[in-house]
Amino acid sequence: MQPTSLSTNLQQVFISLGDRSYPISIGSGLLANPATFDGLASAHTALIVSNLTVAPLYAALLQESLKKHYQRVLLVNLPDGEVHKDWLNLQLIFDALLENGCDRKTVLFALGGGVVGDMTGFAAACYMRGVPFVQVPTTLLAQVDSSVGGKTAINHPLGKNMVGAFYQPQRVICDLDVLTTLPPRELSAGLAEIIKYGPIADMGFLDWIEANIDALLRRDRAALAHAVRRSCEIKAAVVGEDEREAGLRAILNFGHTFGHAIESGLGYGEWLHGEGVGCGMVMAARLSQALGLVDANFVVRLRTLIGRAGLPVVGPILSTSDNAGRYLDLMRVDKKAEAGEIKFVVIDLPGRASVRSAPDAMVRSVIDACCGQAGSL
Amino acid sequence: MQPTSLSTNLQQVFISLGDRSYPISIGSGLLANPATFDGLASAHTALIVSNLTVAPLYAALLQESLKKHYQRVLLVNLPDGEVHKDWLNLQLIFDALLENGCDRKTVLFALGGGVVGDMTGFAAACYMRGVPFVQVPTTLLAQVDSSVGGKTAINHPLGKNMVGAFYQPQRVICDLDVLTTLPPRELSAGLAEIIKYGPIADMGFLDWIEANIDALLRRDRAALAHAVRRSCEIKAAVVGEDEREAGLRAILNFGHTFGHAIESGLGYGEWLHGEGVGCGMVMAARLSQALGLVDANFVVRLRTLIGRAGLPVVGPILSTSDNAGRYLDLMRVDKKAEAGEIKFVVIDLPGRASVRSAPDAMVRSVIDACCGQAGSL
Repeated sequence: MQPTSLSTNLQQVFISLGDRSYPISIGSGLLANPATFDGLASAHTALIVSNLTVAPLYAALLQESLKKHYQRVLLVNLPDGEVHKDWLNLQLIFDALLENGCDRKTVLFALGGGVVGDMTGFAAACYMRGVPFVQVPTTLLAQVDSSVGGKTAINHPLGKNMVGAFYQPQRVICDLDVLTTLPPRELSAGLAEIIKYGPIADMGFLDWIEANIDALLRRDRAALAHAVRRSCEIKAAVVGEDEREAGLRAILNFGHTFGHAIESGLGYGEWLHGEGVGCGMVMAARLSQALGLVDANFVVRLRTLIGRAGLPVVGPILSTSDNAGRYLDLMRVDKKAEAGEIKFVVIDLPGRASVRSAPDAMVRSVIDACCGQAGSL
Repeated sequence: MQPTSLSTNLQQVFISLGDRSYPISIGSGLLANPATFDGLASAHTALIVSNLTVAPLYAALLQESLKKHYQRVLLVNLPDGEVHKDWLNLQLIFDALLENGCDRKTVLFALGGGVVGDMTGFAAACYMRGVPFVQVPTTLLAQVDSSVGGKTAINHPLGKNMVGAFYQPQRVICDLDVLTTLPPRELSAGLAEIIKYGPIADMGFLDWIEANIDALLRRDRAALAHAVRRSCEIKAAVVGEDEREAGLRAILNFGHTFGHAIESGLGYGEWLHGEGVGCGMVMAARLSQALGLVDANFVVRLRTLIGRAGLPVVGPILSTSDNAGRYLDLMRVDKKAEAGEIKFVVIDLPGRASVRSAPDAMVRSVIDACCGQAGSL
């Protein structure tokens, strides 16, 4: 990768959140170009947080660019994987900051996928009660999902993302070049969140994804650029209206209530987050149908696209004695639940979503219809 | 303690922070009166966080009042003391919340001193990315200091309050009755923060404290009410102008740079925070004198009052080989330090403070002049 002029291919999405606003840059050759990092608040030290998978590929490139801006560029690597998104590994970031005498102007750079982004963001939110950070997402899922919205968190043994903060980055750098090294399963997981934006907000985008799913799967740079930009735009519009998830923002969790149950029930790391969401969207669409909101054709259309994207469309059996009961138990500890009542994001009509509850019996029948032995990877 | 009408003796200070504004109630009989908790956001569950010292005295009283407002009132006790203000004990709060299926409307009540307040506030800031909490400070120090300003944190092995958040409570309840059971050392520690507001902001208040120090030491309810109210007012005015400690707010740390070094150098818990601040104020006043800002009379006046309040006025020897060097090393990791340069809050003239740096040699001579074998409790 050679440094390229920023002007040739750079696209920007601006996240408008008052004094917490920030831009997302999307394009090729961004990491290798020091100009990508012009205009950030000046500081003596930058700390890159990455993991043992990503750092060997891209940390040197980022370090080189950052050395133009910071006297000292440190690196700390976390173990790779959702199962490590816990306090113990968060401490590695605080340890690195304190052992190196980092002050409250130090800028953190999250170089990795959603786990690195969530942990770096939460560490930045908490270190000395808040230091600046920049997201450099290296997975498609992180580029279209966790890079927008300022949700940061770690997991607790009793629940996913239970401990965290709303904390906005200074900037997000989505370099499409880094997606060339992404494993196919991770690419599909990212496509799950991209597909999500269709049914909840923009059926025209769903049409476009259906027409371009093969280009996306072969990592066509132009197709990826459009998919990332449009996903970020939609998420930005929703988050801009509801930064702290008081209402509207919850629709971004379409597929996540079922998806989290799958992730948690199988043990974090067994299925990728995007795989849980992909399958969870099929289940949530089916629940929308059971509620009389959408027809069977819509469910089939969505399930077909999710399958074409390389994602699972059949839920795993989490309990051989009472599978639906196990799903229900897991969903009752979801953050969206209130006093034990599960809240589902459902499709009201194609392109519009809302949050509703549903009778346990109906949810059970949806789970029974959507799960089976095929529900494994 | 019998429930009393709120109207008879209640004083209120309003902390004005936009949509994060909240009132501080100051008076007698507040805990025992369910009306104290009228008007909080409705929720199914309240969780009282306390410690093994305070809970036996006041938890039942608070639980009884809260039962009028919440279907379920839970209690979790932390171990008592600054040395326990760490992640391990913070987990006790998250464990209690998750084991009881608490949702994001659950209200946390911090019943205890600064440690309980800091930990409960930080847990509230992080649990599901933010749940409401109420401060019920049971020490004088917590009533006049940590109850205003929204600073929450835990300690890291390499530094005090290094991991935390700015997070405002819904309400603060300062019941003066609970101060009757406060050990004398804790009372003096609280007086340190009260005295602090004089030199940094209001010399008239310092005059009042000098005239009423004996009444405060014998826990005269009216004197305490005035001291708590005026302290909260001054802190509120400062915090209202600078919620996130970009500038002015730092003056509230008068005495804290030296004080933190003492606390950290002796090991947290050896000296109380207020004791470190009391002695630290003597050192910071002396540094102000060395900088030519105040005269020797001012330093003597402040040291005399701090001594009368039952606080240490001579710093401990932290190293027999290079005591001043040890202080300097400890102060360089202070959150206020920038790129290794220590920032001191100094008195510009009586009643006004600012943040400055000072030559190492000058700081060394101040430390040498202020520390000695008398610097132990």
